[in-house]
Amino acid sequence: MKPQIITFLIKCPDQKGIVSKITHFFYQEGFNLVSAQQYTNSIDGMFFMRLRIESDDSVTITKEQLEERFARLAPAYDIVWSVDYGITKQKVAIMVSHTTHNLYDLLQRNKEEKLHCDVKMVVSNHTKLKPIADMFEIPFYHLPVTKDTKKEQEQQLIDLFDSNDIDLIIMARYMQILSNDFINHYPNKIINIHHSFLPAFQGANPYMRAYERGVKLIGATAHYATQDLDEGPIIEQDVERVTHESTPTTLKAIGADIETMVLARAVKSHLNNQIIVDNNKAIVFPETGE
Amino acid sequence: MKPQIITFLIKCPDQKGIVSKITHFFYQEGFNLVSAQQYTNSIDGMFFMRLRIESDDSVTITKEQLEERFARLAPAYDIVWSVDYGITKQKVAIMVSHTTHNLYDLLQRNKEEKLHCDVKMVVSNHTKLKPIADMFEIPFYHLPVTKDTKKEQEQQLIDLFDSNDIDLIIMARYMQILSNDFINHYPNKIINIHHSFLPAFQGANPYMRAYERGVKLIGATAHYATQDLDEGPIIEQDVERVTHESTPTTLKAIGADIETMVLARAVKSHLNNQIIVDNNKAIVFPETGE
Amino acid sequence: MKPQIITFLIKCPDQKGIVSKITHFFYQEGFNLVSAQQYTNSIDGMFFMRLRIESDDSVTITKEQLEERFARLAPAYDIVWSVDYGITKQKVAIMVSHTTHNLYDLLQRNKEEKLHCDVKMVVSNHTKLKPIADMFEIPFYHLPVTKDTKKEQEQQLIDLFDSNDIDLIIMARYMQILSNDFINHYPNKIINIHHSFLPAFQGANPYMRAYERGVKLIGATAHYATQDLDEGPIIEQDVERVTHESTPTTLKAIGADIETMVLARAVKSHLNNQIIVDNNKAIVFPETGE
Amino acid sequence: MKPQIITFLIKCPDQKGIVSKITHFFYQEGFNLVSAQQYTNSIDGMFFMRLRIESDDSVTITKEQLEERFARLAPAYDIVWSVDYGITKQKVAIMVSHTTHNLYDLLQRNKEEKLHCDVKMVVSNHTKLKPIADMFEIPFYHLPVTKDTKKEQEQQLIDLFDSNDIDLIIMARYMQILSNDFINHYPNKIINIHHSFLPAFQGANPYMRAYERGVKLIGATAHYATQDLDEGPIIEQDVERVTHESTPTTLKAIGADIETMVLARAVKSHLNNQIIVDNNKAIVFPETGE
Repeated sequence: MKPQIITFLIKCPDQKGIVSKITHFFYQEGFNLVSAQQYTNSIDGMFFMRLRIESDDSVTITKEQLEERFARLAPAYDIVWSVDYGITKQKVAIMVSHTTHNLYDLLQRNKEEKLHCDVKMVVSNHTKLKPIADMFEIPFYHLPVTKDTKKEQEQQLIDLFDSNDIDLIIMARYMQILSNDFINHYPNKIINIHHSFLPAFQGANPYMRAYERGVKLIGATAHYATQDLDEGPIIEQDVERVTHESTPTTLKAIGADIETMVLARAVKSHLNNQIIVDNNKAIVFPETGE
Repeated sequence: MKPQIITFLIKCPDQKGIVSKITHFFYQEGFNLVSAQQYTNSIDGMFFMRLRIESDDSVTITKEQLEERFARLAPAYDIVWSVDYGITKQKVAIMVSHTTHNLYDLLQRNKEEKLHCDVKMVVSNHTKLKPIADMFEIPFYHLPVTKDTKKEQEQQLIDLFDSNDIDLIIMARYMQILSNDFINHYPNKIINIHHSFLPAFQGANPYMRAYERGVKLIGATAHYATQDLDEGPIIEQDVERVTHESTPTTLKAIGADIETMVLARAVKSHLNNQIIVDNNKAIVFPETGE
Repeated sequence: MKPQIITFLIKCPDQKGIVSKITHFFYQEGFNLVSAQQYTNSIDGMFFMRLRIESDDSVTITKEQLEERFARLAPAYDIVWSVDYGITKQKVAIMVSHTTHNLYDLLQRNKEEKLHCDVKMVVSNHTKLKPIADMFEIPFYHLPVTKDTKKEQEQQLIDLFDSNDIDLIIMARYMQILSNDFINHYPNKIINIHHSFLPAFQGANPYMRAYERGVKLIGATAHYATQDLDEGPIIEQDVERVTHESTPTTLKAIGADIETMVLARAVKSHLNNQIIVDNNKAIVFPETGE
Repeated sequence: MKPQIITFLIKCPDQKGIVSKITHFFYQEGFNLVSAQQYTNSIDGMFFMRLRIESDDSVTITKEQLEERFARLAPAYDIVWSVDYGITKQKVAIMVSHTTHNLYDLLQRNKEEKLHCDVKMVVSNHTKLKPIADMFEIPFYHLPVTKDTKKEQEQQLIDLFDSNDIDLIIMARYMQILSNDFINHYPNKIINIHHSFLPAFQGANPYMRAYERGVKLIGATAHYATQDLDEGPIIEQDVERVTHESTPTTLKAIGADIETMVLARAVKSHLNNQIIVDNNKAIVFPETGE
């Protein structure tokens, strides 16, 4: 196997010796362990692991053999797993409506190769942001939607994403509520940015409501989209300090920068295989010097 | 008038020339302006000002004359005002139940004269924290309460506070809901600490709910107590980063430090005359090198 | 005078009645005070003020008359002042070498009109970033420099900036040390971003040195360029938490986002007339709901 | 072995299979792995591990046997290790001079059992803080020092600490520079708090120098004391935002709270066996829900 770093994400019931068993497997096959991160949820008794292993010339098995052998080991421990060889970039679709800051930021990071992905398209229910996609030479799809055409438009989205093998959908302030059918089609594959520190100000107009409540901090939250609006597993959150001088307009401007950073960090963690979802929570392993 | 710094808090409808008029008044009386902070709420058209003025030998009028003259000026501009000569420390009562960290911190700051106040008493519905009050030689009052005796106990509290001329009541994790009658008796004179970044996790058990929701930040909020539980004007908030490893127990430990700092800062701002309440919002002027 | 908001920045020796005198002047001329922020440096006895005033139909004087009359008032109080009518955008030049993140961010904010400025040009000693300037349709000037041509190149820069009436020069990671002659030509008009929380890690390679020192926080600092490298008045700083896992490469990636935000905020404060320089310190008045 | 959680700290050259080998050892002896945290310094090729293992009735070996067996395994991998059974609290001495905030905080956390330690004594070169030690009923030792008696006083300190089996010395603003001889006597056993975000403002009067430099953030740093003043391995740092209004006095007050939190967190990490020192860096493993 040629030199490369391979990431395994593992989830199974907690059990004695599990770390020893798993790490021994990779040792036996000749891999070097670059990093091993684990988490045990002692309440539901589940074990989670992120392993980065390195192959070199001494590794004689192929990818297929590696997967086949690990698949043979897994059932004994009830292991659910995935593997990423870090070679194929994930294919990403960005959904937007009117808001520009997240789109600029993601397209710039994509272009600068700061994210391990390949943004394949920008999709919007409006045409306003087409010039930004054009600047970065990313295909732009305009799929307008009305109350009556929602079902059809979502089918168009699914067709578009699936025919392009999209791995990750980023809702960069896409201002439409997606149906359960759509969301269930992409479990833990849709990242949404909400412009408040959830669970505060769920739903519409969070900055106006933050202004009205007179909070001293505003924030943003990136989470996986689930059937329950703004209630999916939280990946990343951050806040900034505001004052009584802040108006709805200045809150929006301050918030834009928080949204930008929070979404970028969440997307990076996802693409970097740092996340395992455990019920409604996102276990986000810290970056390990990769 | 002997050299001293005097703080005026002023609130009136916004109107042309108001700053000029007010500052001219103090100039004319011979005062030097140490700092002048203002805020205009352009939505409700109200004007707020915090003025710190300095007297010296050239000031010939007395306190009584100063107040009488300002009181003569005020009606023309619909000014509501208060003045503090910084000489008399505010008398403070701290209400607690079982939680120790805020109490230790406030008593230590009081003893070290880091707060411009005089903590007169610790009051609790339990006896558990009496030893802490004893350590700092602060009188401790045990006023137990049951559902049936709530009305009587609150009357005891009022009698106790009023007979001691208490200026500020700090609810340092006092785990009883106070009646509207009690709260209305002390408008903008009760500061409560809530162990979440409001409006998230209003009500009971915020750390458990933060754990269940899988948030990546936890926080605390200090606010004036009003009739609506956890909905009074927010004075100060802060957060700390947490991870999936955080359990309800570790969240509580991390949160304790946030609560401590947030309450201490809020109390300091109040005692320092930095706050004016505008409807349900606290205008908190920043410290000005005092 | 047509309705507009005008900003005055004022600096003079502290003196009794100065706020009253200044605010009275504007009142008399018919202006409404939108905000008045002041700061007294009690050590060097200097007074600083940022006034935002609003004209309406009742203001009968012209801009020229306003300035003439204020200029007549000023000498009596030793006032140094400037005024901005908020109509003409400042003309900005961005200097870069190889680093892309600040340039993308500033050009995007400029395009989206989030900064009250007009970026006139990007200037570099290399050609690498020309495509980014092209994307945003901003003229790009390549002015290479060697040890021997430094003097000539700086003269070319001065000619270029002055012939374009450049008001603000942003050094967005321009990796050349500018001569004193150049810097003195633009007092408080050059903003530099340094990739550390100054005064830590002044000079070259701050991320490598941060790595070697094992700090738990890294940061960035935006400051006005002065003759002393990395020692000019600090406008804005921020930090992020890092860990032992952070390598020089990950520190650089984390730092890029801090640099981006810190420089953007500093530039915004400058363009928004929030800054007065007092010796080697930048007084940065907070935003006031503008 | 009775049910308990045991923490191993391990340091050795990085080598293939090391995680597998170590975890297998504990599995074989019947222990359950509660958490396993590791770090590989790829530059110097060293491997670090923090293991928390749980014994239950199925573990038949004694502590002595466990240690003996691990000691037999260790040389093959060049492992340097330590073990803590979490039963004996570390014995702590706190050294102070005049500053009260860290002392109050540490004694309160000790009393409230928020730190896994037993504060045995407070030692000072002055008597000023004796009343605080008295409040918490902790023995206070007054060991005055002059230039001429430094050597003798340090010998007294060593005698006092060693005769009391002190495990950790906390310099909570002890304003004396300790000799190399003293420091070398307690490698990685002295934690110092410095009142700046190192390496900024090393040495004396950091708040005054922060004021003079006009920084927009001030901070504090907890580190192990080494021969090079303020240059030991950094355990924890934090900062707060300040403004041009901040005076040396207000900086000191803001800084006191940062110092308090930073030192408390560093001490907690140390007592919790979260730290391994690697050359001049402190690897601080995050808390794992313990």
